Amino acid sequence: MIEADIHEIDIVKAEKTKIHDVDFDNINFGRIFTDHMFLCDFIDGKWQQPQIMPYQAMSIDPSARVFHYGQAVFEGMKAYKDNNGEVFLFRPEDNHSRINKSSARMAIPEFPKEYFMNGLLTLLNLDKEWVKPGVGNSLYIRPFAIATDSAIAAAPSSNYRFMIICSPAKAYYTGKVRVLIAEKYSRSADGGVGFAKAAGNYGAQFYPTSLAQAKGFQQIIWTDANSHEYLEEAGTMNIFFRINDKLITAPTSDRILDGITRKSVIQLAEDNNIDMEVRRIKVEEIKEAARNGSLKEIFGTGTAAVISPVSAFEHAGTTYEIPDLDDSYAAMFKKQLLNIQHNLSEDKHGWRYPVK
Amino acid sequence: MIEADIHEIDIVKAEKTKIHDVDFDNINFGRIFTDHMFLCDFIDGKWQQPQIMPYQAMSIDPSARVFHYGQAVFEGMKAYKDNNGEVFLFRPEDNHSRINKSSARMAIPEFPKEYFMNGLLTLLNLDKEWVKPGVGNSLYIRPFAIATDSAIAAAPSSNYRFMIICSPAKAYYTGKVRVLIAEKYSRSADGGVGFAKAAGNYGAQFYPTSLAQAKGFQQIIWTDANSHEYLEEAGTMNIFFRINDKLITAPTSDRILDGITRKSVIQLAEDNNIDMEVRRIKVEEIKEAARNGSLKEIFGTGTAAVISPVSAFEHAGTTYEIPDLDDSYAAMFKKQLLNIQHNLSEDKHGWRYPVK
Ligand SMILES: Cc1ncc(COP(=O)(O)O)c(C=O)c1O
Ligand SMILES: Cc1ncc(COP(=O)(O)O)c(C=O)c1O
Repeated sequence: MIEADIHEIDIVKAEKTKIHDVDFDNINFGRIFTDHMFLCDFIDGKWQQPQIMPYQAMSIDPSARVFHYGQAVFEGMKAYKDNNGEVFLFRPEDNHSRINKSSARMAIPEFPKEYFMNGLLTLLNLDKEWVKPGVGNSLYIRPFAIATDSAIAAAPSSNYRFMIICSPAKAYYTGKVRVLIAEKYSRSADGGVGFAKAAGNYGAQFYPTSLAQAKGFQQIIWTDANSHEYLEEAGTMNIFFRINDKLITAPTSDRILDGITRKSVIQLAEDNNIDMEVRRIKVEEIKEAARNGSLKEIFGTGTAAVISPVSAFEHAGTTYEIPDLDDSYAAMFKKQLLNIQHNLSEDKHGWRYPVK
Repeated sequence: MIEADIHEIDIVKAEKTKIHDVDFDNINFGRIFTDHMFLCDFIDGKWQQPQIMPYQAMSIDPSARVFHYGQAVFEGMKAYKDNNGEVFLFRPEDNHSRINKSSARMAIPEFPKEYFMNGLLTLLNLDKEWVKPGVGNSLYIRPFAIATDSAIAAAPSSNYRFMIICSPAKAYYTGKVRVLIAEKYSRSADGGVGFAKAAGNYGAQFYPTSLAQAKGFQQIIWTDANSHEYLEEAGTMNIFFRINDKLITAPTSDRILDGITRKSVIQLAEDNNIDMEVRRIKVEEIKEAARNGSLKEIFGTGTAAVISPVSAFEHAGTTYEIPDLDDSYAAMFKKQLLNIQHNLSEDKHGWRYPVK
C-alpha cells in the first residue's frame, strides 16, 4: 500500500471548513463538495506538480477542447468510515486502472498510479471529517480528467487537467426501481467507447432516460444497438438477473463498463455457492421467465447505489412486475458489500483499503 | 432576414483590438480568437440576457456537468468577405436548426432563433475586421452550448451556457487526403447520437484516428457499427463517391450528420446535371470500382475544408490509389461553393446571408 506522503503534493489548506454549514441528514447527491480538491496539469508532455487546494471554481478558456469534443473521462468511488473513525476505500486500484483504460480510449494521457493513490489518500486525510460513519453514509469521490487546450481543432488536446473532488452522500437511489428495456435508443456501439467512463456516454443517455421517466420508469436497461435483443447494462449500473436460483449477467465487452461492484458480486456469488453465469442474455429469456414465474429478481450494481433492486420492467408495451421475495440475493449482496465496506465483516478478498 | 439590433444585447467592447498581433498569413486553425464573444446563460428555466464581451477565460466549477457527462453541443460555420468588404454567412439558419436538433438529443434546451441570429450578426459586426477578403480566407464561427450546473448527479443540468466564439481561418486541410476505412472502431450506434454535433462524438474518434495517422492516413471513413460493410462519413465530413460519372453519397440517418455542405453539393449536382444517388453504399462496391477503374473520385464535404479530395483509401490491408483527374467534380464543386460564399457568382438558391 502506498502511504500518503503529503510532502510530494503542494498543499494549500482551506482557511476554514464549510462542514458546519452542511445538513448531513438531508443531502442531495453531488451538490455539496468538501473543503479541498486535488489537481494536476498535463503540460509539455508531462504531468506537473500535483496540488491540493481549497475547493473552488477554476478559470478556463471557452475554446478548451473539453467543451467542444467531450475529451473527458471520470471515475466514481466511495470512502466509508467505520465505528472507530477509520476511513476505508473499496478496491481503489481498480478505479485507477479503469480511468487509465478510459483515458487511453479517449486519447488522454494515463495518470500515474502513485499520483492517483497519493492524491486520493492525502485529500481524504485532509477532508476525513466529511466521511460520516454509519452504513449508508459515504463520501463519493470523483476523479476526472479533462482536455484543457485552448484550441478548437478537432484533434487531441496537448494539455489536460486531472482532478479529484469529493461529495458527501447518502444512498443514491431509494427503494426499488422500475426500468424500461431499450428498443430504439442505444447507449454504445461495437467498436465505440461504451466500456470507457467517457463523459459523452452519459450526456447521451439523458434524453432517452427523460422519456422513460415521463412514462414512470427511473432507469433504462440498454440492449445491444444492433438487434436490441440482448440485455446489456443500465445507465450507471451493471445488471443481474436471477432465474430460479441461478444468477446471470452479461459479459463485459467494448460496449459495457467493467463495473467494480459487478465483479465483486460475481465473486460474492461464488463465495455464497450461488450458480453464476456470465453470458449474453436475451430480452426474450427474461420475458419468458417473468411469464412462467421463474424470474425471481433483477438488480443493478454500481458504486453509487451499491445494489439497486428492480420491481418491474417494461418491454414492447408490456409491463412485467417482479414480486417481492424473502430470500433476496440483492438484499444479501448489499448487506455483505456494505459490511465489507464499513469494516463490519471479514474482508477475505482484500477489497478494503485503509486510508492512513 | 433579422437585422442586427445591438440594443437587445448587453455589449461590453474590448478596450483595444488584438488584431494587429495576428499574422493572418500563418494561422493555425482554431488557436486565435477575435476580440469579442457572445454568451447567454440558461437559468431558472429560461435564457437570460444575451451578452457580448471581450473574449476571455471564464470561471466554472469543477463539478460543472459538461466536464463529467459531456452534455455539450456545437456548430461550425464560416463568414466570408467579398472584394467590397461585405461580409456573408452561408445558410446560417440551417446551423441554427441543427444545433437545436443536437440540443434536443442531448437534453439541452433549444436556443431561440432570434437570439442566435442576432448574436451572430452583432458579433460579426463588431469583429468584421477579422474576416479577411480573398477566396480561402474566412472567419470560422463556433456556436456551442454547455451544461454548467455545479452538480455531479448523472442527470440533465438545470443551467446552461450558450456561446459563440470566432477564429480566423485559412483552408483547414491542405492537399489530398489518404483515408482508412474503419473495420473495427465505430463512430456511432443506431439509436445513438451520431446525427448530433454532440461533443463526445468527436473525442471518441481521436484515438482511432491517431492509430490511422500513425499508419499514414489523415482521416477515417466510418462504416456502420453493425457490419462495417457500409460507408457512412468521415470525422468532420460527409463523403461522396464518383463511379464513372455518377455521384453517390450515403443517406443521413441517426448515425450520420446532416451536413450543410453535403446538401449543398447534392443541389449543385442537380444544377450541373450530374447523376446523383443518395443511397447506402458498400465498401465492396467502391473496392470493385477501384479495381475496375470506374472509381473516379472520393471527396469529403464540410464547412472546415469545403471539399476535401481523397487520393487513396485502405481497407483490409489493401491500399487503393485514386488517380488524378482533369474534370474533377471535387474541384468544380469547391470552386462553385467558394464563388457563392465569396459573392463571386450568382446565388440562385439564396444560400448567401449578408451580415448587415
Ligand atoms: C455505465 C456504467 N455501468 C456500470 C457502472 C457500475 O460500475 P461500478 O460498480 O464500478 O461503480 C457504472 C458506474 O459507476 C457505469 O457508469
Ligand atoms: C461528423 C460530421 N460530418 C459532417 C460534417 C460536415 O457538415 P457541414 O457541411 O454542415 O459542415 C461535420 C461538420 O462540420 C461533422 O462534424
